[in-house]
Amino acid sequence: MLPRGRPRALGAATLLLLLLLVVVGFFLFGRDPEYGLRAAATFDGDPYGSRNRSASGLHPLLPPKCELLHVAIVCAGYNASREVITLVKSVLFYRKNPLHLHLVTDAVARNILETLFRTWMVPAVVIRFYDAEELKPLISWIPNTHYSGLYGLMKLVLPSILPLSLARVIVLDTDVTFSSDIAELWALFAHFSDKQVVGLVENQSDWYLGNLWKNHRPWPALGRGFNTGVILLWLDRLRQTGWEQMWTLTAKRELLTLTATSLADQDVFNAVIKAHPELVHPLPCVWNVQLSDHTLAERCYLEAADLKVIHWNSPKKLRVKNKHAEFFRNLHLTFLGYDGKLLRRELFGCPNQLPPGAEQLQQALAQLDEEEPCFEFRQQQLTVHRVHITFLPHQPPPPRPHDVTLVAQLSMDRLQMLEALCRHWSGPMSLALYLTDAEAQQFLHFVETSPVLSARKDVAYHIVYRDGPLYPVNQLRNVALAQALTPYVFLSDIDFLPAYSLYDYLRASIEQMELGSRRKAALVVPAFETLHYRFSFPNSKAELLTLLDAGSLHIFRYHEWPQGHAPTDYAHWREAQAPYHVQWAADYEPYVVVPRDCPRYDPRFVGFGWNKVAHIIELDAQEYELLVLPEAFSIHLPHAPSLDISRFRSSPTYRDCLQALKEEFHQDLSRHYGAAALKYLTALQQSQSRA
Amino acid sequence: MLPRGRPRALGAATLLLLLLLVVVGFFLFGRDPEYGLRAAATFDGDPYGSRNRSASGLHPLLPPKCELLHVAIVCAGYNASREVITLVKSVLFYRKNPLHLHLVTDAVARNILETLFRTWMVPAVVIRFYDAEELKPLISWIPNTHYSGLYGLMKLVLPSILPLSLARVIVLDTDVTFSSDIAELWALFAHFSDKQVVGLVENQSDWYLGNLWKNHRPWPALGRGFNTGVILLWLDRLRQTGWEQMWTLTAKRELLTLTATSLADQDVFNAVIKAHPELVHPLPCVWNVQLSDHTLAERCYLEAADLKVIHWNSPKKLRVKNKHAEFFRNLHLTFLGYDGKLLRRELFGCPNQLPPGAEQLQQALAQLDEEEPCFEFRQQQLTVHRVHITFLPHQPPPPRPHDVTLVAQLSMDRLQMLEALCRHWSGPMSLALYLTDAEAQQFLHFVETSPVLSARKDVAYHIVYRDGPLYPVNQLRNVALAQALTPYVFLSDIDFLPAYSLYDYLRASIEQMELGSRRKAALVVPAFETLHYRFSFPNSKAELLTLLDAGSLHIFRYHEWPQGHAPTDYAHWREAQAPYHVQWAADYEPYVVVPRDCPRYDPRFVGFGWNKVAHIIELDAQEYELLVLPEAFSIHLPHAPSLDISRFRSSPTYRDCLQALKEEFHQDLSRHYGAAALKYLTALQQSQSRA
Repeated sequence: MLPRGRPRALGAATLLLLLLLVVVGFFLFGRDPEYGLRAAATFDGDPYGSRNRSASGLHPLLPPKCELLHVAIVCAGYNASREVITLVKSVLFYRKNPLHLHLVTDAVARNILETLFRTWMVPAVVIRFYDAEELKPLISWIPNTHYSGLYGLMKLVLPSILPLSLARVIVLDTDVTFSSDIAELWALFAHFSDKQVVGLVENQSDWYLGNLWKNHRPWPALGRGFNTGVILLWLDRLRQTGWEQMWTLTAKRELLTLTATSLADQDVFNAVIKAHPELVHPLPCVWNVQLSDHTLAERCYLEAADLKVIHWNSPKKLRVKNKHAEFFRNLHLTFLGYDGKLLRRELFGCPNQLPPGAEQLQQALAQLDEEEPCFEFRQQQLTVHRVHITFLPHQPPPPRPHDVTLVAQLSMDRLQMLEALCRHWSGPMSLALYLTDAEAQQFLHFVETSPVLSARKDVAYHIVYRDGPLYPVNQLRNVALAQALTPYVFLSDIDFLPAYSLYDYLRASIEQMELGSRRKAALVVPAFETLHYRFSFPNSKAELLTLLDAGSLHIFRYHEWPQGHAPTDYAHWREAQAPYHVQWAADYEPYVVVPRDCPRYDPRFVGFGWNKVAHIIELDAQEYELLVLPEAFSIHLPHAPSLDISRFRSSPTYRDCLQALKEEFHQDLSRHYGAAALKYLTALQQSQSRA
Repeated sequence: MLPRGRPRALGAATLLLLLLLVVVGFFLFGRDPEYGLRAAATFDGDPYGSRNRSASGLHPLLPPKCELLHVAIVCAGYNASREVITLVKSVLFYRKNPLHLHLVTDAVARNILETLFRTWMVPAVVIRFYDAEELKPLISWIPNTHYSGLYGLMKLVLPSILPLSLARVIVLDTDVTFSSDIAELWALFAHFSDKQVVGLVENQSDWYLGNLWKNHRPWPALGRGFNTGVILLWLDRLRQTGWEQMWTLTAKRELLTLTATSLADQDVFNAVIKAHPELVHPLPCVWNVQLSDHTLAERCYLEAADLKVIHWNSPKKLRVKNKHAEFFRNLHLTFLGYDGKLLRRELFGCPNQLPPGAEQLQQALAQLDEEEPCFEFRQQQLTVHRVHITFLPHQPPPPRPHDVTLVAQLSMDRLQMLEALCRHWSGPMSLALYLTDAEAQQFLHFVETSPVLSARKDVAYHIVYRDGPLYPVNQLRNVALAQALTPYVFLSDIDFLPAYSLYDYLRASIEQMELGSRRKAALVVPAFETLHYRFSFPNSKAELLTLLDAGSLHIFRYHEWPQGHAPTDYAHWREAQAPYHVQWAADYEPYVVVPRDCPRYDPRFVGFGWNKVAHIIELDAQEYELLVLPEAFSIHLPHAPSLDISRFRSSPTYRDCLQALKEEFHQDLSRHYGAAALKYLTALQQSQSRA
């Protein structure tokens, strides 16, 4: 690597000039603003201070414009997978170089992050995953009491597992936030002496001084020691110096007298450095401002002109108490709430580094005509939303042959339905939430403060990030459906509360009807509605029928859209003792239980209208039997009309566009199913001639 | 001012070193990355190119950490007031210095921006307003066809109107967005030669070359000329060189042959520079990347490592078409949607520069106990929300003695009510919207694409920015109430649609009852509700009574909360031909029409419950007569329970906290009204013993 703009022929003359520049820099920038701040005060013998000082005034020479920078992160589990995204957003916000992220992940994190990065489509970012499971044997022999568990220790083995071709890498903990261009950090490699192999910021607490409490015996360290939340690793030099042997021998030696590491890899790094101080290159404190409860970081940030990286290195994370916590939280909240799609920015002047699919997508979008009346629909259909699956910790359901997952989608204005839904449905759920990044944080707070929701680990929440003016209802349904893990799914809507017994009843029915997962059956759950805010939910079909007769309940949309549910044949249902077959008819859109490998929803239907109708047609075209369950029901609660339904009602263009989508759907249906699809087209034409 | 860290004694030795550094820089940074890019290619004779080149490699020396930087902006009208906030957010995001903003505003912008900055409470920002009206005579003699009107020209007179003590200032158009620290721009003053007084970026279009079309006759300019969206003005030198005389003479001379300025101040600046090229210091192109339709900016940003300021200098603004528009829009959208409260960040290490009130607020917040069960309520009550009044263009109602403004508040989930409300209420409205910064942009789009809403100029929308988990209902009401401009206000809620005739009827009633604006009267508008999504709104009281008797309509909350409206005496109302008096009773919360100087709502009530009840008590305590209007009515439409009402129902703590608020309210009432307040306390105790 050559620093930006430096001519490639580095002759003696250039070296001389460099030396001159150093001298000049010392005169011009005498203040020593950030670099190695207070290093001299804390290290006995100050082995680094003078070296720091000599380089201090120079604005680091940034790497060349299009140079690829490498970053390694260990990330495991649901919470760290959420955390790391905020870190990545902060890095992407300020970066101006292509990045290669080396992610050491467990299966959970890999699943989440693979989906996220695939759908994020950030140009000039390469992702490579490494399986944390394979690394465990390398470090599991080290007893460790730190909250990061085994995963923290994995940073020690990065030189062994990263590609041999990789000479240098920046290693980051998931709980750091950037407030500067990561290229500035990368540029500090240029300040390493020939022997230095690892760049670290001094630890900003008294932990390693060993005087925090009586009999406090930390691992050995130079002075306050170093913090490993941000590391510059010179990999090829580490490999040459026999790093693996060095750290393992050191750890084994210390473990003769110490029972475990308290701070995971950091203890081992410090013990190695204590024995080999020539290996460490101390970094300016601003590159790892540590915000634990008893932090000494204030000494750093009150003098510095500029903070570069903040590090939430307390188990309390953002809830840490220190007098400037609010300031640092605001920096962090900036990226928590930042709309990630804005980071889909190309790097001008660098070779094209579009992620897979991005080019075709750009071309398709470029072909749209902005003046066309349905442009908004076309654009929305093509939109690739970022998707964060299993946003919260989740316990997948054990494999059971008749189990059913409730599948639904919602946005922020329906959060208040979740608790009631949990009370009504005791089985697994897969829910897609259409949220902004900021709303996702509100949602997180909402779940954490709800005893009902936080007790449920069998509800998987998948965030689909908002983009565009039309609600992508079927894309949302498909995300939730794809993440359902049981053989059967109940395709519901968020405004419906199922009968209390429905989960058990469905499983029993599937078992009794011997459906297996291969039979193409769609079990219809009859839908009702109440118009009352407060409403006593019926405990049985008998109670439901009483309420229906009393006019407190109605057949769903009976007045506004009778054809939507008429084929369910509610008169038959009243009397039915056993499941009965019904036939498809135009505009039928019942709520059904189907095998999870059922057809997906057609994503062309965005906004209001026809999104379920098309799916039922697809089921019928694929010859799913429609069977109504005699004891099943669910009830729709009242709500204000959505923005989309309001637009549908008030805008003729909106209705025309929906009509165009319907017609295109039928054309595709004919192409796909041939003559068998004729009945749907006929039905459509008949219903239009009636309208 | 001395650049950061430069020793104060600048002797010959240092000059020599500087020279060395320049030479070294030339070798090391041979690429000439950004500074004066392509200047040589466009200026005949290249009078600046060589000077640029010599300075090119130097990273500008930043001003000292706490140095105050001055920025001047001309801003007039509703739309520019919205625009300028995004600019200010982008500057604040990257700034590390205290700022003094000099805002030249018309009355509209001043009103908006004064409220905004007062409630924004950003530390280390000083605001000073200058009245644009007073400047008009100085420039109105210049015929101008540019869309900015007279306001654009006002940049010419800044040296005359800014304080004499002010030596240098950065002048910005409202349509620029920062992507870097403004201190870096300020630092470029240090590169001015002794004669240079104005720093400008070259114009990135061919406009001034005069060959865009046949007979295209632009004002004279050096080569492509300069763009005045970003200006460094060295004010004291300008005053010394007789700037005022210089530009007025130049403008007058040119206007002998040209009919008007096409590009406002920019034409005049360029004409002066053409005559006095020694006055201009050309700035690197990255400090004003111009995004007009035919921009040549690509030459700049494809080579630059880093963009500093982008300039939406097309009348199409963000809708401009160029192949990288998406990239630049994303930069801009970052700040459009950025949560402004995160910019309430102090500058570490600089003298305390808290805005008025911030210190008391911090103390009050610090005294709260996080472990106290009602902490969330306490914190929400103390929260100072940023407020952007009249977010959209607004035509204040003409003064009419009996006019009534409808006052209400809403959040994003009630936007769909606005069109219906406009159809039902033809008079002025003052609406407070509780939104995030990103939602405010969605709201703007919503209004712009709604023919109904965009046609109405008598609806004032006031944005109160979200902060905290509880809906600050009464703070919102007070914002909307304070901005109502008619003698009377109808205090309504967003889920109600008034009778079609209500606006006319209220005005007629106020006139007939000879209320004047001094009589303490509260006119009650009886409230009803429907439970149906689709519903045929009654055109008269007779139709309403028919629907009521048929059970399609109900008295509002008759089943859940009868005491809320019982005192209105609906039986009496059915028969009433004239207004009638009613008496206050516990929990009464009618919708009323009152003089606009009525008591404010009590802001301690946040979230759900008792917010209107307390206000009616306040009216009664201040001896407002309660008069029910015989022909008035409004009807509540169905919606899902709000998050707050759901929390109220499910959380005993929430209910306990509301109870605590009620008791504190009564204590304050007793303190304030003495024995007269006893009846409210008695009523409270009775209703509690019944419950």
